[in-house]
Amino acid sequence: MIPRYSRPEMTALWSPESKFQIWFEIEAHACDAQAELGIIPKEAAKAVWDRGAFEVDRIDAIEAEVKHDVIAFLTNLAEHVGPEARFVHQGMTSSDILDTCFNIQLVRAADLMLADLDKLLGILERRAHEHRDTVTIGRSHGIHAEPTTFGLKLAQAYAEFSRAKTRLQNAREEVATCAISGAVGTFANIDPRVESYVADKLGLAIEPISTQVIPRDRHAMYFATLGVIASSVERLATEIRHLQRTEVLEVEEYFSPGQKGSSAMPHKRNPVLTENLTGLARMVRSYAMPAMENVALWHERDISHSSVERMIGPDATVTLDFALARLAGVMDKLLIYPDRMRANMDRLGGLVNSQRVLLALTQKGVSREDAYRLVQRNAMKVWDSNGHAHLLDLLKHDTEIAEKFAPGELEALFDLGYHTKSVDVIFKRIFGQ
Amino acid sequence: MIPRYSRPEMTALWSPESKFQIWFEIEAHACDAQAELGIIPKEAAKAVWDRGAFEVDRIDAIEAEVKHDVIAFLTNLAEHVGPEARFVHQGMTSSDILDTCFNIQLVRAADLMLADLDKLLGILERRAHEHRDTVTIGRSHGIHAEPTTFGLKLAQAYAEFSRAKTRLQNAREEVATCAISGAVGTFANIDPRVESYVADKLGLAIEPISTQVIPRDRHAMYFATLGVIASSVERLATEIRHLQRTEVLEVEEYFSPGQKGSSAMPHKRNPVLTENLTGLARMVRSYAMPAMENVALWHERDISHSSVERMIGPDATVTLDFALARLAGVMDKLLIYPDRMRANMDRLGGLVNSQRVLLALTQKGVSREDAYRLVQRNAMKVWDSNGHAHLLDLLKHDTEIAEKFAPGELEALFDLGYHTKSVDVIFKRIFGQ
Amino acid sequence: MIPRYSRPEMTALWSPESKFQIWFEIEAHACDAQAELGIIPKEAAKAVWDRGAFEVDRIDAIEAEVKHDVIAFLTNLAEHVGPEARFVHQGMTSSDILDTCFNIQLVRAADLMLADLDKLLGILERRAHEHRDTVTIGRSHGIHAEPTTFGLKLAQAYAEFSRAKTRLQNAREEVATCAISGAVGTFANIDPRVESYVADKLGLAIEPISTQVIPRDRHAMYFATLGVIASSVERLATEIRHLQRTEVLEVEEYFSPGQKGSSAMPHKRNPVLTENLTGLARMVRSYAMPAMENVALWHERDISHSSVERMIGPDATVTLDFALARLAGVMDKLLIYPDRMRANMDRLGGLVNSQRVLLALTQKGVSREDAYRLVQRNAMKVWDSNGHAHLLDLLKHDTEIAEKFAPGELEALFDLGYHTKSVDVIFKRIFGQ
Amino acid sequence: MIPRYSRPEMTALWSPESKFQIWFEIEAHACDAQAELGIIPKEAAKAVWDRGAFEVDRIDAIEAEVKHDVIAFLTNLAEHVGPEARFVHQGMTSSDILDTCFNIQLVRAADLMLADLDKLLGILERRAHEHRDTVTIGRSHGIHAEPTTFGLKLAQAYAEFSRAKTRLQNAREEVATCAISGAVGTFANIDPRVESYVADKLGLAIEPISTQVIPRDRHAMYFATLGVIASSVERLATEIRHLQRTEVLEVEEYFSPGQKGSSAMPHKRNPVLTENLTGLARMVRSYAMPAMENVALWHERDISHSSVERMIGPDATVTLDFALARLAGVMDKLLIYPDRMRANMDRLGGLVNSQRVLLALTQKGVSREDAYRLVQRNAMKVWDSNGHAHLLDLLKHDTEIAEKFAPGELEALFDLGYHTKSVDVIFKRIFGQ
Repeated sequence: MIPRYSRPEMTALWSPESKFQIWFEIEAHACDAQAELGIIPKEAAKAVWDRGAFEVDRIDAIEAEVKHDVIAFLTNLAEHVGPEARFVHQGMTSSDILDTCFNIQLVRAADLMLADLDKLLGILERRAHEHRDTVTIGRSHGIHAEPTTFGLKLAQAYAEFSRAKTRLQNAREEVATCAISGAVGTFANIDPRVESYVADKLGLAIEPISTQVIPRDRHAMYFATLGVIASSVERLATEIRHLQRTEVLEVEEYFSPGQKGSSAMPHKRNPVLTENLTGLARMVRSYAMPAMENVALWHERDISHSSVERMIGPDATVTLDFALARLAGVMDKLLIYPDRMRANMDRLGGLVNSQRVLLALTQKGVSREDAYRLVQRNAMKVWDSNGHAHLLDLLKHDTEIAEKFAPGELEALFDLGYHTKSVDVIFKRIFGQ
Repeated sequence: MIPRYSRPEMTALWSPESKFQIWFEIEAHACDAQAELGIIPKEAAKAVWDRGAFEVDRIDAIEAEVKHDVIAFLTNLAEHVGPEARFVHQGMTSSDILDTCFNIQLVRAADLMLADLDKLLGILERRAHEHRDTVTIGRSHGIHAEPTTFGLKLAQAYAEFSRAKTRLQNAREEVATCAISGAVGTFANIDPRVESYVADKLGLAIEPISTQVIPRDRHAMYFATLGVIASSVERLATEIRHLQRTEVLEVEEYFSPGQKGSSAMPHKRNPVLTENLTGLARMVRSYAMPAMENVALWHERDISHSSVERMIGPDATVTLDFALARLAGVMDKLLIYPDRMRANMDRLGGLVNSQRVLLALTQKGVSREDAYRLVQRNAMKVWDSNGHAHLLDLLKHDTEIAEKFAPGELEALFDLGYHTKSVDVIFKRIFGQ
Repeated sequence: MIPRYSRPEMTALWSPESKFQIWFEIEAHACDAQAELGIIPKEAAKAVWDRGAFEVDRIDAIEAEVKHDVIAFLTNLAEHVGPEARFVHQGMTSSDILDTCFNIQLVRAADLMLADLDKLLGILERRAHEHRDTVTIGRSHGIHAEPTTFGLKLAQAYAEFSRAKTRLQNAREEVATCAISGAVGTFANIDPRVESYVADKLGLAIEPISTQVIPRDRHAMYFATLGVIASSVERLATEIRHLQRTEVLEVEEYFSPGQKGSSAMPHKRNPVLTENLTGLARMVRSYAMPAMENVALWHERDISHSSVERMIGPDATVTLDFALARLAGVMDKLLIYPDRMRANMDRLGGLVNSQRVLLALTQKGVSREDAYRLVQRNAMKVWDSNGHAHLLDLLKHDTEIAEKFAPGELEALFDLGYHTKSVDVIFKRIFGQ
Repeated sequence: MIPRYSRPEMTALWSPESKFQIWFEIEAHACDAQAELGIIPKEAAKAVWDRGAFEVDRIDAIEAEVKHDVIAFLTNLAEHVGPEARFVHQGMTSSDILDTCFNIQLVRAADLMLADLDKLLGILERRAHEHRDTVTIGRSHGIHAEPTTFGLKLAQAYAEFSRAKTRLQNAREEVATCAISGAVGTFANIDPRVESYVADKLGLAIEPISTQVIPRDRHAMYFATLGVIASSVERLATEIRHLQRTEVLEVEEYFSPGQKGSSAMPHKRNPVLTENLTGLARMVRSYAMPAMENVALWHERDISHSSVERMIGPDATVTLDFALARLAGVMDKLLIYPDRMRANMDRLGGLVNSQRVLLALTQKGVSREDAYRLVQRNAMKVWDSNGHAHLLDLLKHDTEIAEKFAPGELEALFDLGYHTKSVDVIFKRIFGQ
């Protein structure tokens, strides 16, 4: 997480202020619950809400001495609350606060990223409809295959990020739990109803069984999910990078007036945003590994996960939030060149219709193997001509082929509408309209 | 995937025979659909079912020449079906078969692993109830904390593998799709209804938009999920390894009569199965990375994912299936030593009740800081005595403490029932009874 | 490791026969050493060499009972050697054999891969010289930058794989150790001179301090190194894939006469070998992670690394060996199209010389900022013309620029020789000639 | 990289000030070289050194407009240097500065970590000698095996970190290169002698062939090496964690007077530093993956590696530096309890000598299988007695065994000196004395 690749709202979520504020709310709600159960005085709970406060600097100073962050926080809190502070944190253990707080941060981070996804989906949908019928060549292996439309490319991305959204919702649900169960999770010193009360106030589910800590398989799943979503970011970014390369140039990232592409080559307009997204995806993906290694804590818990989470908690969410927002910006303003798409497609002299001719031949009774051979011998000629020969011309002059077709039939096999006839069906599947 | 860590049912799923059988079924169902739509003769579809057959060796021989596995399969199939074979695969592309087949294999693999999980969950539930009240020390940081029960440890594992099951069901659903959409996914040469028909016959959903290939974010999620589940295997395996170490020895892996623990030391009884599970978990986890890198295929598709999936498809599922089954076996026959658990717990001279004393002091009006100091000075004496002193004795002789309590009150703070009183509540949350 | 991506010599290295043969040699050499030291009878050592033998099936059968592979091997060996077998393995522990054997296999695997690298380097050098002066456009961000030569691209790969060779030699040295130090590495039951003797016979260094096992940081470094080399394979493979795409088509993988590119599109000539290499690189890279996790064995050793190494030992070396050999084949027979390279370069209307003009302007006294502005305004016109305008023509008509140059000076800035003048210097750095 | 896990010297290395200072030096040295070659005026080079300066804030402000960090820096520099600034950066490209600077930062980071390793090695050596003869039980699989000494454990760590040092020196050498070769690495606009001059001034080697960028296999190797070293940190940290657990308690991290172990349990003394190191190791290891993915840049270069390196450059080096320093501190002040080691060893009733008895029996003419059986039947009795029976007593009463030995022979097999007799040999191998 570095400022260059961060957005303020997500960054703020991981600030010390945010963290201590959440700690405070957990403690204060717990006091209310304890007071309702008659375990601590109602006045004490009220005093916590009324006079409770903290200062980040003061907490840091105390922690430097006691080397324990929760004790430092509680000490600072007590300085504000006064004698009633002795009722705070009663029967609780540090992890009750730390883990519940971390989960709240992850839930809020998920909410920000879900909003990012919604924005991205909206943009993809709009642009998909804009270019629903913009014919472009479909490529497999980087080689021209058959025509498709640019709208279909975007619809594919829309479908992929819709899945990303569902996955993120699942991951959010995985970590939306609250544990207040004491030193080894037995509720020895605290009533389970406190946990239920606090969970309810904070919009979380109770953690049905904890062991001082909230089990880390939940978090492993969360970060693995971010890694998968980042990989989808990489996919779309890679597509843009490919389409912007000099020889293809079917799209370009928006290039602002003041922007300089290169310190040396003034003509350069580079896909730097999507290249950047490719790198960011590598980072988000990498955080899944330590998150998985965090699962096997020793016995009821150890603290080895803590340093990992202090790093990947912010790093993974801030980076993916930034990447999703950047991708949305790229797609929103993407310069799209339909003429160039058409020109590229036409370079191959009609070869993209070869399979269609092949099928037509089999329907005329030619065996698949013979049809393949007949088409391929003409296709290879077009290929070798570097775009100067056209497949339709060659087929007309290949009597073994031409004799199978009635006049006009061969020409009809080169009609583009043939390839786009199912676009509506697919759009209906994806966008429901 | 090596025989040592494989089980036959899962291995069979990845055999060439299984694969080609699935290919055959996809092609044959597609012929039925095409026949229903009037695109190919009904007799042709029937011929495929009636005479369709294949031989793995023959396919291999053809592939050695044409260097394309699907063409090799179709050629061999045609040798059996005869002239009607020209209607097979019509309008389809290789990936229609390859990807749908791969998904079917992953779905079936998930079903096997779901059965593994069910078996494991059943064992964990049984043993959790057996040891619901077997008191043992809870440990954090490897250090004695407060008492818990061995049943709670197992209930925690039960809850974790219940989550694993839900995740695996989600992952199964992610990949349970069928795509038959042609060379770039436009249905140019095939009616979308063929896809729907085949999907329905094979128990799959249609892939709403494909690009020749089924998008690989689905598979990334699948393999990432296996990685998370493997990490939970590692957690439980690590717990057993810890508990079996010489100084702890609260449980042991079942040790069969003929088994030799070491070529050198006849007394050794090593937790080799759970150590093995730890290593297997590392492997399953590692496969998540290439699966995520597979997502960003170029344009409508490239073939770089293929080699990865030929390896991790079997490797990840065979290994996790084996690991889950091995873990179930370990837990089923685990030797559990309640006396030793009790002896270990008693070694610390009652220190595990220190927090309880601390809380009791605060309830007597002592400030948290003072209470902490009072308890700690006695706790440190117990600690330094290496188990010879007992906290209760020391507290009784610490007048600053003793004077706060009525007779019998201090003794009551050392009652074990205090720590187990919420076991029922937790079991009810987990097992519903 | 699957047959499709395996070569026989490397595969053989990991067969049970190879492994047991190495075990036998370690034991037999150790007997010689023990005999020389007078610890066992010389006849016993001789009997081991004379009558020593093993059968894989028999060992498997014994292991099924005793569940310990080294004991099974020794039992089978004893069946051949007879009573003198009681002197075999004396004072040794299983890991002495297992770890030394594994290291020998890794050393031999490294030797095979070093030979692969030598072959690849030879091919790269030959082809680099062939195309030393084949001018092609250099691209950054996928965008045309300035001219380079195809020979330089290959020289870069040569330099990269030379580094790979050095790294692999280092990694080989890391694991070329022999440990025969007993149950916890103290030589309690065996003389350290046995270790030295066996190490010497097997061409290994002694492991200066072992703990029953050879420390796994050595192996982590080995597998991490394979991962880095695989990443270099990916780099060159990616370059070929880019250059083969339809719009670029500056090179093609060799396409054999009988080969079919697609079941549907007979004109397709796909870079399937380099795509495959991209996937294989992902796999080799992924094995670095579990190898690193293997380092932190518990205490003097545990067995968790074993399952990992049974898998990644063969998987990583077989796959990288295959990948290096495949890459060598691709580069050996690569079809290279200089005309197409030239045609692509000329598409940008001379823009690739823009920096040169910029520099010339500054040398004429124009400030860098002004020069940048002047060049960019013309460059943008060329860019927008889609290749129809030529930079030289525009510059001549831009009086603010033209007035700075004497007749002929501007033309000279578009001379290609300018860009290739240092090729000799670079080749000398790389190839020493 | 977060303040909690950072040390100032390493952090400073990655500050904007440090980076721009290095940029300045590269540019200024390049000017000197250009002046010596007569390409720019000597006064210009002098002016750069004399008046050259920069302000981070001003650079940020310019970059916000031009969106290019090197141009922003040069613009700010020109504001100080004046008109001669037009000779700065002549013929160079941004990557010449960026990549050379990054390498310098990595070299300096390596130097700091090499110093860390030296300090750690010194501490390990000192403490290894202190406890050269402190007998402790050696454990495999977490189970007692045979005696070793605590000094040997530390000597093993010393040997491991010595290897780490060699690896880091290699990694440092890998990245100690300088490239000033222009937009695609052809030296079209700059003389190769400039590169040589600057490299020499900065203590770097020339990059023999670059492609605008310095090839990223060098950096992948660097970060992979850090991952391996971090794994060795994890190994030693894990050992400490094991030895500190309540039931073992053979060592403890130093516990400062004011430190509180737990907010709830005042007696807790947790191995939090080594647990922390375990987590940090997971992080450093994870950075190897994106570093390897960075290798396959497109064509002569793309910019996808940049975001990765902006993150892992600081993150990996700052974290490993911190971890090495923390580990040194832990080992320096580690509390070591020889009495407890001895007590733990004695718990098993002499079982640790079982192999020795086994060997003695074979030397008395008993077959290995019989000896194994004889020893095991007594060993199992000791095992089942939970430490109350002693192996020597049982053996004396097992007539089948006792009859093989002369008086005193069996007792001699239980002498501890037997196990420590080779400590000197091993120490000499490791420490050379």
